[in-house]
Amino acid sequence: MYALLGGTRVIEASSFVASPSAGLYLAQMGAEVIRVDQLGGGPDFRRWPKADNGASLYWEGLNKGKKSVALDLGRPEGRELLAALATAPGDRAGLFLTNFPVDGFLSHEKLQQRRADLITTRIMGLANGGPALDYTVNSALGIPQITGPESLGDEPVNHVLPAWDLLTGAYAAFAMLAALQHRQATGRGQEVRIPLADVGIATIANLGQLAEVITTGDNRARYGNSVYGAFGRDFVTADRVRLMIMAITPRQWTGLVTALNLAAPVAEIEATRGVSFAKDEGVRFEHRDALFPLVEAAVALRQSDELGAMFDQLGCCWGSYQTMREAAHDAALVGENPVFSTIKQTSGLSYPVPGAMATIPEEPRLPPVRAPFLGEHSDEVLAEVLGLGSGQIGALHDAGLVANA
Amino acid sequence: MYALLGGTRVIEASSFVASPSAGLYLAQMGAEVIRVDQLGGGPDFRRWPKADNGASLYWEGLNKGKKSVALDLGRPEGRELLAALATAPGDRAGLFLTNFPVDGFLSHEKLQQRRADLITTRIMGLANGGPALDYTVNSALGIPQITGPESLGDEPVNHVLPAWDLLTGAYAAFAMLAALQHRQATGRGQEVRIPLADVGIATIANLGQLAEVITTGDNRARYGNSVYGAFGRDFVTADRVRLMIMAITPRQWTGLVTALNLAAPVAEIEATRGVSFAKDEGVRFEHRDALFPLVEAAVALRQSDELGAMFDQLGCCWGSYQTMREAAHDAALVGENPVFSTIKQTSGLSYPVPGAMATIPEEPRLPPVRAPFLGEHSDEVLAEVLGLGSGQIGALHDAGLVANA
Repeated sequence: MYALLGGTRVIEASSFVASPSAGLYLAQMGAEVIRVDQLGGGPDFRRWPKADNGASLYWEGLNKGKKSVALDLGRPEGRELLAALATAPGDRAGLFLTNFPVDGFLSHEKLQQRRADLITTRIMGLANGGPALDYTVNSALGIPQITGPESLGDEPVNHVLPAWDLLTGAYAAFAMLAALQHRQATGRGQEVRIPLADVGIATIANLGQLAEVITTGDNRARYGNSVYGAFGRDFVTADRVRLMIMAITPRQWTGLVTALNLAAPVAEIEATRGVSFAKDEGVRFEHRDALFPLVEAAVALRQSDELGAMFDQLGCCWGSYQTMREAAHDAALVGENPVFSTIKQTSGLSYPVPGAMATIPEEPRLPPVRAPFLGEHSDEVLAEVLGLGSGQIGALHDAGLVANA
Repeated sequence: MYALLGGTRVIEASSFVASPSAGLYLAQMGAEVIRVDQLGGGPDFRRWPKADNGASLYWEGLNKGKKSVALDLGRPEGRELLAALATAPGDRAGLFLTNFPVDGFLSHEKLQQRRADLITTRIMGLANGGPALDYTVNSALGIPQITGPESLGDEPVNHVLPAWDLLTGAYAAFAMLAALQHRQATGRGQEVRIPLADVGIATIANLGQLAEVITTGDNRARYGNSVYGAFGRDFVTADRVRLMIMAITPRQWTGLVTALNLAAPVAEIEATRGVSFAKDEGVRFEHRDALFPLVEAAVALRQSDELGAMFDQLGCCWGSYQTMREAAHDAALVGENPVFSTIKQTSGLSYPVPGAMATIPEEPRLPPVRAPFLGEHSDEVLAEVLGLGSGQIGALHDAGLVANA
């Protein structure tokens, strides 16, 4: 947590990964992020992975440091309260983050009637309002067909990490602040729509891959664990440790050749084939049929600890494969990483939890804050943001429109 | 392209995916992004995929709409010019985006001596300054071991999409604007460091997966193309079309059961096993041994076009698998998508190119702008940003410190 966005208030009505992660990034940079959910929890409230007691580890991970308001959004009075919160006054308020339907009761057009300079950042599936999720977007982009070993033939391999959701979430946090800059300069708000499918296809294009298939007319082949267009693959050491080894820059390549004592055989390949590997990583990829066996044999002769030390000394780029359990107990990644602090989360479990994934050396890093209990801040928010008195809030409770944790 | 960030100037000294993509997002929202490179191009200037004429489709994809300045960064005078650009005055300037080494000539500490309120957003590999790339970060997180079919045993499967680079890039664009908000409020600048490895491990934690392995003590199993904790997998139709079908919300589940006429057999499973699938997607995952064969058989009986129409009508969430070449020729994704316009890119090739991946209904969408030629804007930028006269600029050219396209 850092206080860069102190004084900024965001109302979030969202679920799943993309929209809540945008709210998380904003909260971890100091914004007051108020997540409003249906009484009893939104569609992601019990999503896996879950703790033994049924609490969603996923939900408490994506909602750290937010406030929670629980309303009956099935009734007009509950919807009215959410609309009032989203459009409440304040120079650095009127920022609404959502993945609710574009044409529903949270349409920008309707909300804008209450606050003309409202900024709505809306995560969508398809740009036309149709449903799409990370995995259905990914299947349409051609990525699963080029993931995994050649031995799989035409079988697609889905990614496990919801990469499109995550990219969309970070981009939404960016888009929210871009719109805020614009409002500060011009006084005008607007709706910024971010469809997952557009993020997917635009990204493939930004990486040059769409241009590649259009201009060549061919799909890229499946290259297994090899990195396309550079030197990179997994190799196994004498003590059976699998390493990911890459060489993109000249320094990384020279370091690798030196560490593995391959100068002579590499020079021989260069002479025979009339190429030079030092300055062009693409040439290393084109001649991987010769280079991979050399590196494979050399790595297989060496112990992982010696090799790692040598690689580090020479500025090589490498990493060990480890399981997620090993990652969780990796001191550099978690235990001794200042990004993490062990706190008691909302589930009641204590475990290491990350704050902002950026580090700001000149600012104090504030410890991560647990996720809210559902509705924990209902009364506080209704009083502070909408100015409701305790009698009014009590009446809302009596009517079953609001709940506390 | 949208003009939300008009009047904002960002100096970018970067390479590869993360840092250039952050600059791209800023440029596509209207910022003036000036990318400064070594004469002849940085380490990513010829990266694959490439056009037949040697131009990098990757480079021209990630640098659309930016300006380009080419300097000799190996000499003190060239470094001085870059430092002067990064720290040039202006309320909405002094924004520096880089992945150069944290302790080198572009250290924040050194630059800050020239402009106290400078904001530096720095992409890093490891937080300690050590090298790491997307693939070496990913190997350490445990994702490759749970990607792909069970038949692969312990073989890891690398992702093809550089998901960590992409997430880091979007987050960096967000962090840049968060720091700008802070400077506008307080007058203070700072360096925001974003290490790829921290983005990776924090994200695994944000999704609840780190808590899962810590609290259970076990790694998640490999589930192939099945979506963990919900109903989702690939299925093949009678006409051999492979579909990704998901059901997370109650509506998606009910729609799927209706479309496939599975109400009776699903009810029988529910009765036999004493569970209810309608409201809890996790239960659908736990009983996938019974549900997958039912859906598989029902999908295999139906033609893809009929099924797709039915799914759409019932609000189901699904997508076809298609190759990237098919994606490139998919009218909804590219040809008729207002995000894309066909322009002549810097390589000389004309093809569909995306603008901003967000859509702002109330603002005019400006067409995408090709990437610059290397050094295309050197003279213009030296004159406009540093106020150099034509004689001074000529002398820099004579000294071999600056080049034009």
